[in-house]
Amino acid sequence: MRRLNHWLFLPIFLSLSFLVHSCTNTEQSNKPQTETPTEKDTDQLPSWKDDSAKTRILDFIALSTDPQKTSFVPPEDRIAVFDNDGTLWCEQPVYFQLLFALDQVQKKADQHPEWKGKMPFQAVLEHDKESMAKFSMQDIMTIVGATHAGMTQEEFTKDAKEFLQTFHHPEREKLLIQMVYQPMLELIDLLHKNEFKVFIVSGGGRDFIRAFSEDIYGIPADRVIGTTMQATFEFDSTSGEAKLIRQAEIVPPIDDKEGKPVNLYRTIGQRPLLAVGNSDGDIQMLQFATGMGIILHHDDADREYAYDSLSSIGQLKQGFKEAEKWDWLMVSMRNDFKTVFPDNHSSQEQNPPSK
Amino acid sequence: MRRLNHWLFLPIFLSLSFLVHSCTNTEQSNKPQTETPTEKDTDQLPSWKDDSAKTRILDFIALSTDPQKTSFVPPEDRIAVFDNDGTLWCEQPVYFQLLFALDQVQKKADQHPEWKGKMPFQAVLEHDKESMAKFSMQDIMTIVGATHAGMTQEEFTKDAKEFLQTFHHPEREKLLIQMVYQPMLELIDLLHKNEFKVFIVSGGGRDFIRAFSEDIYGIPADRVIGTTMQATFEFDSTSGEAKLIRQAEIVPPIDDKEGKPVNLYRTIGQRPLLAVGNSDGDIQMLQFATGMGIILHHDDADREYAYDSLSSIGQLKQGFKEAEKWDWLMVSMRNDFKTVFPDNHSSQEQNPPSK
Repeated sequence: MRRLNHWLFLPIFLSLSFLVHSCTNTEQSNKPQTETPTEKDTDQLPSWKDDSAKTRILDFIALSTDPQKTSFVPPEDRIAVFDNDGTLWCEQPVYFQLLFALDQVQKKADQHPEWKGKMPFQAVLEHDKESMAKFSMQDIMTIVGATHAGMTQEEFTKDAKEFLQTFHHPEREKLLIQMVYQPMLELIDLLHKNEFKVFIVSGGGRDFIRAFSEDIYGIPADRVIGTTMQATFEFDSTSGEAKLIRQAEIVPPIDDKEGKPVNLYRTIGQRPLLAVGNSDGDIQMLQFATGMGIILHHDDADREYAYDSLSSIGQLKQGFKEAEKWDWLMVSMRNDFKTVFPDNHSSQEQNPPSK
Repeated sequence: MRRLNHWLFLPIFLSLSFLVHSCTNTEQSNKPQTETPTEKDTDQLPSWKDDSAKTRILDFIALSTDPQKTSFVPPEDRIAVFDNDGTLWCEQPVYFQLLFALDQVQKKADQHPEWKGKMPFQAVLEHDKESMAKFSMQDIMTIVGATHAGMTQEEFTKDAKEFLQTFHHPEREKLLIQMVYQPMLELIDLLHKNEFKVFIVSGGGRDFIRAFSEDIYGIPADRVIGTTMQATFEFDSTSGEAKLIRQAEIVPPIDDKEGKPVNLYRTIGQRPLLAVGNSDGDIQMLQFATGMGIILHHDDADREYAYDSLSSIGQLKQGFKEAEKWDWLMVSMRNDFKTVFPDNHSSQEQNPPSK
């Protein structure tokens, strides 16, 4: 049952070179603008600058929800889908899920004496950055298989939650879960207020994202779609204990590119009205949306990172052309975001998701 | 890509013998009991008899939702899952989805001149009941593949909706969509009122159920789980048209037995608190539930059908033992249902699903 060939989706884990090369980005103070309560009340997207991008988003929501307009969409068809890595939270210098996999190797080493002296685990355990930077796809697959499969769903969720509550970004003085984009949190919140159903559609692991999506984004587990592991059911007829064991096999298709519309329809049963992404892997999801497409362009080396066509992570190249052709909104992090990261996420009040 | 071997889930289509042998069940008047508005207001499950089954269900809901009790479950964890065929609507004398497949062969024959004179299509087109009763698994697979794949998701949904709006039960003077169980509609409604999220988890086709689940059960498409077809994404770069084409291949696992907990967790990301089924195919789903299991026993030949351990459809045999061992509630259609079918379903007022 351990068909690791499906792990071919793992270009996400290729860019280990960050472990060797340090990054020159420096952290900035990202305190949200101070506003009076009155301003805040009237500003629906306070962390977005008052420019054409914000106007276009607000116009789209207004046109979709005004029953007097021909553009009106009933609440049951107001489906919004967001990519996760690079759209809702940072994806540099590597996908955060890889940091989790490497961290799990460290934490679980005692339970796996067979890892000692054995590659690729040895390199991780000995912090051998030179060797890690040379990891082959098979090495990465071995590590992900060992850290994402073989346990129950509950055990995996517990591991992921513990990691997310404590792990800091390798280049910033923030927890990973503080590396979410405040303007996107506000957009999700505004969509919930306007009776949109908001789903995440990620190339990353579905159950990894579920470990924080409700707390951080206000998006419950059943609205998280992503690359999904197979599982098998086991039942102990004496104790009555039932469990699902995660298998090192992906449910096809991988949730990237053409796989995104396939997987999102599989779960939602409808096409999205609004789709938001940041990379070429999101193009098909945006093509599948009926109302509006938004692409976040990472052009802010001071406050976050600047990357697009040459990046091995979150590459954005074809997306520029598609955005122009289909009139998708290109959002510039540098020009359109007043604030990038939340000052103190825990203080944010969220609107509950719509029914 | 046409891997029809996955169609092995199709014991559902084996029992074509009904086409030859007529059934002796006769339709009864199923008018709901007349009640005064006052009685109706206070009775949360008016089509359930006032007996121990009803009491146990109401007690369970009360205990789960009372914040003063240690048994309290917060709304976000109030997940209820219902099987569909034989639990929410009738599954005799054959699964209704097979009627759809056969009907599609008739309706689409003009578009498929190659079907003429070719088995198994010829038997269906000529209403050759003797031949149909002898259909092999491969014959059934051929028919289902031809009627459930090769079209867009929207085309399939349109076909299913048209069928469901017009097709009558072969042995009753009712539309198929009128063959839903009024007591179960009330239970879904009561769960929604109590902030449960209610999902369907069916061995039948996910997209077939989605064609009526919101209208009939008040359960939206994104809360329908079932056996799912693969699909491929196509995009016309000139017109901008995006579509999903259904493939004659099942996304593993088939949503029956051990596949039910796997598939429901895949979509919901949580274990159910309450699980409701009617056959041995639901056992694992009930084992996976953390709070309560309910099995509907079809023992009402007068008002519906009476079948259990010897039936090839919805067989219930091992389930009796499991119910006793794990203290699941066994509901008797004959003894516990005051009414079976809605008198006029369209007049029913539904509560919206919880968030």
